[in-house]
Amino acid sequence: MVLQHQALAVDRVKARVRVLDRTSGKETDWPYDRLIVATGARSRKLGLAGEDSENVFFLKGLADGIRMRRFIDERQPRQAVIVGAGYIALEVAEALRERNVATTVLYRGANPYSGLEPEMGPKIVNELEAHGVVFRGNVRPFSFTTENGRAVKVATDQGDFSADLFFIGAGVQPNVELAREAGLTIGPAGGIAVNERMETSDPAIFAAGDCCEKVHRVSGRPVLSPLGDTANKEGRVAGENAAGGNARFYGIVGAACVKVFSLEIGMAGITEAAAKKLGLAAVSQVVEANSRVGIYPGAQPTMLKIVADQASGRLLGGNWIGRDGEARKINTLAVALFNDMTLEQISRLDLAYAPPFSPVWDPLLIAANLLKRKVGK
Amino acid sequence: MVLQHQALAVDRVKARVRVLDRTSGKETDWPYDRLIVATGARSRKLGLAGEDSENVFFLKGLADGIRMRRFIDERQPRQAVIVGAGYIALEVAEALRERNVATTVLYRGANPYSGLEPEMGPKIVNELEAHGVVFRGNVRPFSFTTENGRAVKVATDQGDFSADLFFIGAGVQPNVELAREAGLTIGPAGGIAVNERMETSDPAIFAAGDCCEKVHRVSGRPVLSPLGDTANKEGRVAGENAAGGNARFYGIVGAACVKVFSLEIGMAGITEAAAKKLGLAAVSQVVEANSRVGIYPGAQPTMLKIVADQASGRLLGGNWIGRDGEARKINTLAVALFNDMTLEQISRLDLAYAPPFSPVWDPLLIAANLLKRKVGK
Repeated sequence: MVLQHQALAVDRVKARVRVLDRTSGKETDWPYDRLIVATGARSRKLGLAGEDSENVFFLKGLADGIRMRRFIDERQPRQAVIVGAGYIALEVAEALRERNVATTVLYRGANPYSGLEPEMGPKIVNELEAHGVVFRGNVRPFSFTTENGRAVKVATDQGDFSADLFFIGAGVQPNVELAREAGLTIGPAGGIAVNERMETSDPAIFAAGDCCEKVHRVSGRPVLSPLGDTANKEGRVAGENAAGGNARFYGIVGAACVKVFSLEIGMAGITEAAAKKLGLAAVSQVVEANSRVGIYPGAQPTMLKIVADQASGRLLGGNWIGRDGEARKINTLAVALFNDMTLEQISRLDLAYAPPFSPVWDPLLIAANLLKRKVGK
Repeated sequence: MVLQHQALAVDRVKARVRVLDRTSGKETDWPYDRLIVATGARSRKLGLAGEDSENVFFLKGLADGIRMRRFIDERQPRQAVIVGAGYIALEVAEALRERNVATTVLYRGANPYSGLEPEMGPKIVNELEAHGVVFRGNVRPFSFTTENGRAVKVATDQGDFSADLFFIGAGVQPNVELAREAGLTIGPAGGIAVNERMETSDPAIFAAGDCCEKVHRVSGRPVLSPLGDTANKEGRVAGENAAGGNARFYGIVGAACVKVFSLEIGMAGITEAAAKKLGLAAVSQVVEANSRVGIYPGAQPTMLKIVADQASGRLLGGNWIGRDGEARKINTLAVALFNDMTLEQISRLDLAYAPPFSPVWDPLLIAANLLKRKVGK
């Protein structure tokens, strides 16, 4: 898990990288024609007193996971408190319940996952509680109380929460120090600024992955979106162009999916609230349906919310929540968003129908048909 | 199940429909301003001697299903022979196995489902055989031998097959007689010709559903595609326009999905063979992957084949076969086809990734990345 070589600094005038060989402790200068910065991201810390205690965990790399599992194996914790309710936090909650650890999730927002529509919240909280996870929303943590180097409770504006294991899942922040010190432009979202070719402000230097910003095609704005598939795609583009190619990365549409116990959630685009913040006259439609034709064995309730721009009729985003493989449908929205489709176009899509896989009218078609009545086009 | 009123003829000059009241036996003329023809389709017969025997079944409406179930309940057949291997034929095979009836499927093609890529064949045949269905490809039936009004065997170019229940699943043919006799244009595929507004050759008459042709957006040609979701969409367009509106149906992309026991198959667009018949220089790529990240519990093998036009790089179609909800992914291709996306564009799509739902590189992205090397764009 220890990288042998660590880049310490980039000298853009001499086109050299100062590299530390961690095995020997020697520093040497490596020359480059083209450089790719892929410094990734690290767990965001909250800056709370006591958060560096040995039983307060973060999770970014494999070493973090190994350390946390070893602690659980050796100390057999009975009560865990998780601060945060994003992807990683809730995956940790699920893993802890699998180990029979009593688990409480404290979150600053009213509902889990900051990037979801509020309508999804109650369903996710129900799923957590059905599996023995206590969820407390609108909680602000202040500090950890420690005893002998170990945290014993976290103080919040909703009272104290005791535990023998704490986990902080507050997202990640991009590792941009090397790039900043080299004088590369850092964008408004806090990541390394790159163009479609993954070039930084220095045309000899490319960047890719969680350390750099990407364009959100729906809002047109640069954003941070530290996801593995996006980083992978950017890496290919940066590598190809560093080798003299001319590949392009066209940006993201915010497509993601997540499983919470047996509940599946897919999301794409931007939320209604985010659209309104951008000054768009966003309208939305919620549709409750089934994952299969209602009488077909195994049908499960499903709920879709879509958001559109009232002026243009363009789809802006959607959340799909259900079971029975429903999260696999979110890419229908992802491709529609990539192509700037309007509700009118979406309402006429030819989507696959068979009783085991959807109702005759796919929930997306129902939602588009209903919502297009509320928009200009 | 008996409709009270049956349209016998359309007099376009007088704008009247001759209607038979089946209860009273009386015929009357109904005037119209706008007429919608939605005469549907009927089971295609093979014209074989003996196919009208009481134990030779077709399946189109509910009455057919009730008749067949009653026969099974009362006669307890032990051996069934199915002629055909399309959606309905294989759903019947599954239902018969559920009732513990020994079942043999005879099909004119080498593999089940005429509209699929040949690579899907062995997987489907394996699934059928794993559930006790005998599949025999490249079989031509000649006639049924009957005894006392009941079929006892079907003679084919591969020998005789005995059974006490026969089922013919040879697709459907559009009911166009009323339209043809009224002088409406019948299109090259044999259905009522309509435009995007679902208008027939007479602007006062609309048609919708299985009786009429639709434009396949990939080939640009009129086709028959008797599917419930398409018929539903066309009906809305015809109805809206008959009432003075201006709705449009933009055609189909051939999106469909089907379940054979626990195997799921999604399809969209046209096959490689169909593309070559149209004179396109089609190229294709098969990708074998997993339904989840390989180490994630529950991962199942999945296979995707995509087809593209070598000259333009445009996606022409694809088949996706697997388990674990994979068929729900076919709409990703359906939306890409609707938007005439190229492999280059598809290879850059932002698709949702999470370990329970796909590998980091979605099989569609892998396929597009591989296949774009073989095309001009």
